Amino acid sequence: MSDLSRLCIHTETVKPLQIEEVAEKFAHHGIPGVSVWRQTLENRDPQKTGQILRDQGLEIVSLVRGGFFPSSDPGKRVAAIEENKRAIIEAVKLGASLLVLVCGSDPDQSPGISRTQIRDAIRILLPFAESQKIRLGIEPLHPMYADTRSAIITMKQANEIIGEMDSPFLGLVVDVYHTWWDENLEDEIKLAGKKGKIFAFHVSDWKVPTEDMLADRGLMGEGCIPIRQIRSWVEEAGFNGFIEVEIFSKKYWRLEQEVYLKMIIKAFEEFV
Amino acid sequence: MSDLSRLCIHTETVKPLQIEEVAEKFAHHGIPGVSVWRQTLENRDPQKTGQILRDQGLEIVSLVRGGFFPSSDPGKRVAAIEENKRAIIEAVKLGASLLVLVCGSDPDQSPGISRTQIRDAIRILLPFAESQKIRLGIEPLHPMYADTRSAIITMKQANEIIGEMDSPFLGLVVDVYHTWWDENLEDEIKLAGKKGKIFAFHVSDWKVPTEDMLADRGLMGEGCIPIRQIRSWVEEAGFNGFIEVEIFSKKYWRLEQEVYLKMIIKAFEEFV
Repeated sequence: MSDLSRLCIHTETVKPLQIEEVAEKFAHHGIPGVSVWRQTLENRDPQKTGQILRDQGLEIVSLVRGGFFPSSDPGKRVAAIEENKRAIIEAVKLGASLLVLVCGSDPDQSPGISRTQIRDAIRILLPFAESQKIRLGIEPLHPMYADTRSAIITMKQANEIIGEMDSPFLGLVVDVYHTWWDENLEDEIKLAGKKGKIFAFHVSDWKVPTEDMLADRGLMGEGCIPIRQIRSWVEEAGFNGFIEVEIFSKKYWRLEQEVYLKMIIKAFEEFV
Repeated sequence: MSDLSRLCIHTETVKPLQIEEVAEKFAHHGIPGVSVWRQTLENRDPQKTGQILRDQGLEIVSLVRGGFFPSSDPGKRVAAIEENKRAIIEAVKLGASLLVLVCGSDPDQSPGISRTQIRDAIRILLPFAESQKIRLGIEPLHPMYADTRSAIITMKQANEIIGEMDSPFLGLVVDVYHTWWDENLEDEIKLAGKKGKIFAFHVSDWKVPTEDMLADRGLMGEGCIPIRQIRSWVEEAGFNGFIEVEIFSKKYWRLEQEVYLKMIIKAFEEFV
């Protein structure tokens, strides 16, 4: 039998499913981990939602996503920190020990200025996260999202901020989709690993061609990312946590999700 | 009156126009420079085409594009070099002194291997280019094209190859669309400028949101790229050549191209 003990799937990957279906179907297929998107918690009690998942034996790997710190409007920067505090409290209630940060970017200012604002915001937020025992994971995003989603676009930029703050509650989320093109990827993984800063590892694939900038990610094996090689780098760097399948795909969201879950398991076994 | 003396427009920017219309309309609007795409020359005599453009007083800034060197198939790599020699001869006949290289990438192998193959190919091609007095300009492309279009995705990678070969016939094409996200952009422009290696400068804008990965580039001023700032960097680095408008846009290709040319001129005056 195949080893699914490190498989985690994001709720956004199977967006059409309600949380009760996620709990039941993941358990049924032997998928032990789940990362929960905040949208899934809308109009729901996070504590009860966490219980529904745990009752089926699932481990909640992370809450996705905080961040979106920068803005040319100082009022919005203050509001973003408050919103992130709410996300941290949600994580506590849900029972997730990690909050993934998609750090944000503002097209009205340079990515450099946005990065400074991200740094400032994390410095303010971190003591609160520490007090709540929630780890924050900075996820560098692909440069095609540098306009609005993340001014942190390389592992190096994430490692710099993480190095400066030097807290056991601040680390890195490595996502193969966002980082595979970076010639410094292996070196930066090693650097982060040496300090125990790799908090999470996300997989999907880069389709050739990619037809939609947001929602045309591929199943593992369907694209050009050397997933096995990158996995070996993060493992050699000391990471042995869950491997999280995070796929946004209009094509796969249209499928019967039961069928899709089986495809994910197969792709995980064959190509991760 | 405004100064259009450094304005150049790519034939691909106004793709619906025939070359005779390009010659006539550019001259009519006082646009002094044109960069010619190889598609434009299909089934045409490059020498006569060059003459049509020069007869209207236009300067031919570059031939676009050579490159696409890497392949996991060695036979295709040899064929690519032959194709690039044909492009160099076309440039000679057309009367363009610069061939822009979009270097290519093969999703069946890592970008690192593709870069090695690009380096090898340029080393073979360069003596031929020198013999024909055609300069080769490496254009780093945005990482979202790292799968098939270019394994050269940063200015640093281009500068490294250019530095190694150290020929007056090998330099850099800086395109704001491809490079604006790069935190090393200013430094790498300085480095290239110091050695006189900036051969060309391309402008357009990054729309927020961008709806198509290939053909939704914006007119200057329409997006989030700090074009003026990047222009100041290339000029401080010693570049004083044409500023080339290279926009692929389904939206603008649908416009009456006469109207679109006026919009380009206005955007050039206001935002470049």
